[in-house]
Amino acid sequence: MDYREVEATREFVCTLDHGGDWRAQIETFAADEGIDAAFFTGLGAVQDAEIMFYDQETMEYDSMVFPEPLEVAACVGNVSMLDGEPFAHTHAVLSRPDGEAIAGHLNSGTVWAGELHVRAFEDSLVREHDEATDLDLWEL
Amino acid sequence: MDYREVEATREFVCTLDHGGDWRAQIETFAADEGIDAAFFTGLGAVQDAEIMFYDQETMEYDSMVFPEPLEVAACVGNVSMLDGEPFAHTHAVLSRPDGEAIAGHLNSGTVWAGELHVRAFEDSLVREHDEATDLDLWEL
Amino acid sequence: MDYREVEATREFVCTLDHGGDWRAQIETFAADEGIDAAFFTGLGAVQDAEIMFYDQETMEYDSMVFPEPLEVAACVGNVSMLDGEPFAHTHAVLSRPDGEAIAGHLNSGTVWAGELHVRAFEDSLVREHDEATDLDLWEL
Repeated sequence: MDYREVEATREFVCTLDHGGDWRAQIETFAADEGIDAAFFTGLGAVQDAEIMFYDQETMEYDSMVFPEPLEVAACVGNVSMLDGEPFAHTHAVLSRPDGEAIAGHLNSGTVWAGELHVRAFEDSLVREHDEATDLDLWEL
Repeated sequence: MDYREVEATREFVCTLDHGGDWRAQIETFAADEGIDAAFFTGLGAVQDAEIMFYDQETMEYDSMVFPEPLEVAACVGNVSMLDGEPFAHTHAVLSRPDGEAIAGHLNSGTVWAGELHVRAFEDSLVREHDEATDLDLWEL
Repeated sequence: MDYREVEATREFVCTLDHGGDWRAQIETFAADEGIDAAFFTGLGAVQDAEIMFYDQETMEYDSMVFPEPLEVAACVGNVSMLDGEPFAHTHAVLSRPDGEAIAGHLNSGTVWAGELHVRAFEDSLVREHDEATDLDLWEL
């Protein structure tokens, strides 16, 4: 396991805008505040969601759109730099009216309401292409 | 996105009481320790659970009771003030013996065992009625 | 609820090794860095997973093996000492290509890619046998 000790410099509580995109708002916030590295947790609800699953054989993301209201039961993610811009790597567990859970990589989702805790680090985290997985990962 | 930079003053590790209510214990703890604002993560198991889903059309919560043992695979939430009392906004992902996941807004659940990490902020967070969603949200 | 105020001394961002075990890597990291107490959150993907469910009647863990690629939609856990060694109590929400979520106590899983945020505390947390649940819990 590669790891890096980080210094947390700033910490934020956020409410996502109703009607805006869950992930894009995090990236805009990071760009506005000059956040190059952070981890976050969150909860709330969305009006729809696009979840992606990484196919480990084809090494490509498959996309699924859920055009329905869903709770955001748990959201865990981080911010780091990808191609010079803040990228919010966002995973989420969503749920339906009967409690059924749907989960994965959250590409987008129209916010109904959302609350985030963001812990920003002084260090910059940069994603670079990784051969073994064909993903953009950190070199720590 | 509205946000506020917060100062974390205190941090706690907690074990929830066996047989007590998951959410009520967090609120009692917050009241006892004078915590007006916090985020938390947790894991454990419950003996039963009441999960709520917010109906975005009727703007009311629908309740589902699961009278069965469930793992708490992930719990994400926060503490803020609602009508002058600490309110623990608690979402959870629960699971059944076959691994099936159930998730949503955790209103209550009888604790089997539970472990929490609570990060308390110096700032006070207050929930006020929001017209667009009919929810009590923060004005940051 | 029992709780202890803790002092966080160090904080880490980690990338789990492709092909290694999700939980074992966290424990090796904790042993290498002398971490006796921590909470962590994470996300990523695994090539397979062993999930456990604690049967509250028999007070034994039942194991389920999922020999398939799964997203790690959310991982919440902590590190504390058990029988003199760091133990990573790890819960996770996993998901299948169609978004179906599977969740519980993650005993093991072969990492495809994984990203963790670890917050280490100065205090030592020690697990001791608890009679009511037959689990190893903290005495705070």
